[in-house]
Amino acid sequence: MVELGVVYRNIRRADSDIAARLGAFGAATVHEAMGRMGLMKPYMRPVYAGAQASGTAVTVLLHPGDNWMLHVVAEQIRPGDIVVAAVTADCTDGYFGDLLATSFKARGAQGLVIDAGVRDVRVLTAMKFPVWSKAISAKGTVKTTLGSVNIPIVCAGALVTPGDVIVADDDGVVVVPATLAQKTLEAAAAREANEGEKRAKLAAGVLGLDMYNMREPLQRAGLKYID
Amino acid sequence: MVELGVVYRNIRRADSDIAARLGAFGAATVHEAMGRMGLMKPYMRPVYAGAQASGTAVTVLLHPGDNWMLHVVAEQIRPGDIVVAAVTADCTDGYFGDLLATSFKARGAQGLVIDAGVRDVRVLTAMKFPVWSKAISAKGTVKTTLGSVNIPIVCAGALVTPGDVIVADDDGVVVVPATLAQKTLEAAAAREANEGEKRAKLAAGVLGLDMYNMREPLQRAGLKYID
Amino acid sequence: MVELGVVYRNIRRADSDIAARLGAFGAATVHEAMGRMGLMKPYMRPVYAGAQASGTAVTVLLHPGDNWMLHVVAEQIRPGDIVVAAVTADCTDGYFGDLLATSFKARGAQGLVIDAGVRDVRVLTAMKFPVWSKAISAKGTVKTTLGSVNIPIVCAGALVTPGDVIVADDDGVVVVPATLAQKTLEAAAAREANEGEKRAKLAAGVLGLDMYNMREPLQRAGLKYID
Amino acid sequence: MVELGVVYRNIRRADSDIAARLGAFGAATVHEAMGRMGLMKPYMRPVYAGAQASGTAVTVLLHPGDNWMLHVVAEQIRPGDIVVAAVTADCTDGYFGDLLATSFKARGAQGLVIDAGVRDVRVLTAMKFPVWSKAISAKGTVKTTLGSVNIPIVCAGALVTPGDVIVADDDGVVVVPATLAQKTLEAAAAREANEGEKRAKLAAGVLGLDMYNMREPLQRAGLKYID
Amino acid sequence: MVELGVVYRNIRRADSDIAARLGAFGAATVHEAMGRMGLMKPYMRPVYAGAQASGTAVTVLLHPGDNWMLHVVAEQIRPGDIVVAAVTADCTDGYFGDLLATSFKARGAQGLVIDAGVRDVRVLTAMKFPVWSKAISAKGTVKTTLGSVNIPIVCAGALVTPGDVIVADDDGVVVVPATLAQKTLEAAAAREANEGEKRAKLAAGVLGLDMYNMREPLQRAGLKYID
Amino acid sequence: MVELGVVYRNIRRADSDIAARLGAFGAATVHEAMGRMGLMKPYMRPVYAGAQASGTAVTVLLHPGDNWMLHVVAEQIRPGDIVVAAVTADCTDGYFGDLLATSFKARGAQGLVIDAGVRDVRVLTAMKFPVWSKAISAKGTVKTTLGSVNIPIVCAGALVTPGDVIVADDDGVVVVPATLAQKTLEAAAAREANEGEKRAKLAAGVLGLDMYNMREPLQRAGLKYID
Repeated sequence: MVELGVVYRNIRRADSDIAARLGAFGAATVHEAMGRMGLMKPYMRPVYAGAQASGTAVTVLLHPGDNWMLHVVAEQIRPGDIVVAAVTADCTDGYFGDLLATSFKARGAQGLVIDAGVRDVRVLTAMKFPVWSKAISAKGTVKTTLGSVNIPIVCAGALVTPGDVIVADDDGVVVVPATLAQKTLEAAAAREANEGEKRAKLAAGVLGLDMYNMREPLQRAGLKYID
Repeated sequence: MVELGVVYRNIRRADSDIAARLGAFGAATVHEAMGRMGLMKPYMRPVYAGAQASGTAVTVLLHPGDNWMLHVVAEQIRPGDIVVAAVTADCTDGYFGDLLATSFKARGAQGLVIDAGVRDVRVLTAMKFPVWSKAISAKGTVKTTLGSVNIPIVCAGALVTPGDVIVADDDGVVVVPATLAQKTLEAAAAREANEGEKRAKLAAGVLGLDMYNMREPLQRAGLKYID
Repeated sequence: MVELGVVYRNIRRADSDIAARLGAFGAATVHEAMGRMGLMKPYMRPVYAGAQASGTAVTVLLHPGDNWMLHVVAEQIRPGDIVVAAVTADCTDGYFGDLLATSFKARGAQGLVIDAGVRDVRVLTAMKFPVWSKAISAKGTVKTTLGSVNIPIVCAGALVTPGDVIVADDDGVVVVPATLAQKTLEAAAAREANEGEKRAKLAAGVLGLDMYNMREPLQRAGLKYID
Repeated sequence: MVELGVVYRNIRRADSDIAARLGAFGAATVHEAMGRMGLMKPYMRPVYAGAQASGTAVTVLLHPGDNWMLHVVAEQIRPGDIVVAAVTADCTDGYFGDLLATSFKARGAQGLVIDAGVRDVRVLTAMKFPVWSKAISAKGTVKTTLGSVNIPIVCAGALVTPGDVIVADDDGVVVVPATLAQKTLEAAAAREANEGEKRAKLAAGVLGLDMYNMREPLQRAGLKYID
Repeated sequence: MVELGVVYRNIRRADSDIAARLGAFGAATVHEAMGRMGLMKPYMRPVYAGAQASGTAVTVLLHPGDNWMLHVVAEQIRPGDIVVAAVTADCTDGYFGDLLATSFKARGAQGLVIDAGVRDVRVLTAMKFPVWSKAISAKGTVKTTLGSVNIPIVCAGALVTPGDVIVADDDGVVVVPATLAQKTLEAAAAREANEGEKRAKLAAGVLGLDMYNMREPLQRAGLKYID
Repeated sequence: MVELGVVYRNIRRADSDIAARLGAFGAATVHEAMGRMGLMKPYMRPVYAGAQASGTAVTVLLHPGDNWMLHVVAEQIRPGDIVVAAVTADCTDGYFGDLLATSFKARGAQGLVIDAGVRDVRVLTAMKFPVWSKAISAKGTVKTTLGSVNIPIVCAGALVTPGDVIVADDDGVVVVPATLAQKTLEAAAAREANEGEKRAKLAAGVLGLDMYNMREPLQRAGLKYID
């Protein structure tokens, strides 16, 4: 299943327009729309508050302490892509900094999701290049060992196939398989359809208990009120 | 001790004015004034920097991955309350987001303290609805199992009895038992009484060694200076 | 090797000008220039985003839950120093708050690095007194046990000898031995010399693969491209 | 709620016979019988495989790095008790070793549950004195600060009131409130009543799907089999 | 990619003889033979020392706190299989105990690998039913939500496709894709071919430096000996 | 301070007889005798229960995922040594297995202490070659990068200078600087002198409260007994 030393140049990307529209819904809504599947572990955090991105995944498998393949993957980025990077063992090294961010941005990348560390956080923040990582570390890496580009990878507990849609924001990172992107978009839109109305009601003091008709099922489940 | 499926509607709340005045001292001062008891574990963090809240606790016991009781507790909120939520097992799911925050706020809640995850962090920040949690996660929850409202709970290592005062800020979350609230307030006020003077002295270069008369006890303890 | 209850008053500090110039390069560059040694564990984080400091280390060894020696070390601070504090066992208590920060600042300290917790984060942020710690906690400490000042300590996995240069920012905390400070400064300067040019090329879309001549070594290592 | 410096000499212990009989069911069965409440966090582990104990709780609240109160609690132990120890902040120090174990055993203690570290593990194992702890550490402690004995404490996330029944084995530590002990015993007995029969059926190859009549509810829930 | 509520009854299992022979080499050797891929995270530990198993994977995706699907997967077990279980979010609950172990064993299962908790550890040990888990917990689970059986899952960071070979022992758990099983077996055999001879040399005092001809490459890399 | 690519062949070892006698006291007693300094973090655990070792330290600094220098250090082992290994970044890979253990044992090593992972745990246990590590992992390592041998290192939070005495058992790993070895031995012997008598008294039911004359200081500290 895992091949080392290969770069797949042609991948089937999900529709970029769908990716953008999924991004507008945010990670929480998209995750619900997916049936609560496809979320990376919650240790994946944006390097600055308010980071938001969506796009199609180009994937890269790295070795601990070695970021050589990030240069290889840079060439495979097309506008609208998000790079998703996994490592073959736990590592918090700073694989990615301002120079690579400059390069990725120039290639049209929407951001980076990496199950490892990054650095130059101040500059990444100033550049507004969104990155989700599990650590921040000044520790640099070497460039000696081959990994692979655009193979299926496991990143922070989630399977990512090249071309999948990635939706990431303050709430986390969600992977939407390319084949489910359209359907997920529709489900997300349906979920959001009457959110504004609900919010207005709740703001006016209406209780979820009433708005969602929960009183009867709660009573049936045996809830007792004691004065 | 733990009852499931019950909602206590009448709890004895600490005085709301005392709760507000305790909040003005902040978590660190109140914790000192309590004799260094009642602090939740330091993994409880505000979802945005600068969050501050104090109020009387309404408590809720939840099950992993199930936020049904957050709707039940909403009805029990009175202006000036803080909702404190515990879960029967470790869970990082996102139990709480912008809709529930809208509802809680409309009911007069001062904030939420939850030993689990929350989501919609961007909106919570924009709303200035303060939340302390142990995780941020896009993962939503179901509504199928009964917990309880306004029973004593253990939240992040601290026992919380309904009606206790909660003081929370960037430094953490402190629980002040209702019976100790007045006494703690006095102790906090006494601690703060000459803080301004101390700060001015220290800013002028006076050493704590001299201001607190530490040189003699340090010498007695055997401290040696070597040139 | 470890002495308790001693304060060394005379330490050989690295050149303060070199410390300042190393600070301008930032932790990531300095760490590279050191040959990737001397980095504290990545759990050491600034208490506010954008914190930056460099200076010469005055060290202090503390006991769990006891900050007495922070008052002792305050007297040993000279303008341009950074206080580096270790604890004899893991502890997240809040050893340091606004009063000590006022005192340290008045003495000319550039910041604090502590392998434990701190508090009064809101005030530290407002004061712009930079602190790197492993935790934030409202829990205060006692003043009963002697530690030592200006002995070699292990802080967050790194050996710190009094007088070493400390460089800290969002990316972490690096320790530069005094004897290597000049050489590290030169190496850092050399690394940065053509960064601007590189950044411009990458921003223009040139790939690292080409700029760093990686294609040939990648091919030699066996990288295969598959269409 | 939390008093420091007090020792309650008279506590209402649960019936010792019930405690012993609950112990025979083991932690997993008792926890089920309690309605899945009262379990300490799973980081609490026995210091040797196969450790088993049950008894009535005498509680002690300790300070980080200080085991003075373990000597105080020793005097309060009656045959059939289990000592349950909490600390006011996270600490992994080795509070308890072979001498205290000798003393506790002589007093009739059934074991120790401590949310901190212990040492002399080899001797504890040889003595067959069962201990559940969150860490093992050679680091000793001082004897300088007062805590309390026989007050309600929070230990590893569970509230323990003096006199409660503690059931501990390889699977973890369960707290049964004294008032629920009899009822829990009956529920545990009922659960176990036909375990032997079930085990025999399953060993003979009968599926839980059939033995528990799960096929119909699974189908109703929508389970699909695909060949 | 992830389907909920489905059970695939027909999967293509790797050859059972190859699975058994891979097991004889152990996890470390097989992992090397795979090119150091396919290892689960090292937090996966056997519940008793010396546990060893190999077999073909039947997979199951569970929900937090819900073990219903373990009964469903039991029916799909064939002699020589190992059950591999993942959960849709982090959970340490005790999903599996002595009754399910009795059932799995009766169906011919070689063991269980579960990215969650188990219980009845004493009985599992006595039964010699090998289990690898990330936790041990007395906390039981409910039976209310559908997951899936024999779909690809991510377990402890590794992708497992139904029918893959699993090799597990004290050193960890390795996943060998069915398509690579034969080739991996050959590579493992080749690695082991002259292990006995090497071990004898090393036992006789021959250095790896000489046996592996490392002196010359070490010198070339710049290693300096200082007397 | 840290040199890469060097091997110091001549180090000043502590007296081997003292090292052996310190070992007989065990880690807890030696740590007390040192004034509670020099203990490695408690995450360092023996790979099998009952492991015990003491000896003089030969040190090695490794890179993540690279065990080349373990072959280099093997040549520097003299009978009575313990190898102490640190890594320049957090890593759980299995650096050490049965072949290296065979080699180390043949050279006279008393054991290995490594702030990383090891493998072949079953064989290490059968060989009775004691190892303390922070992880167990089947993941092997490469042999490509130079570290150093016999330089001062930081291992699991403790500074280790070549030639120091290491005492390790179930309770953890203690480092005794060579210069303090004799003095520590005397202090340890003094501590143990009347342990037997104390144990006998405690076993007879005498309380520590009386044996150590604690009642008066406890009363002075304000302890209150409540009936």
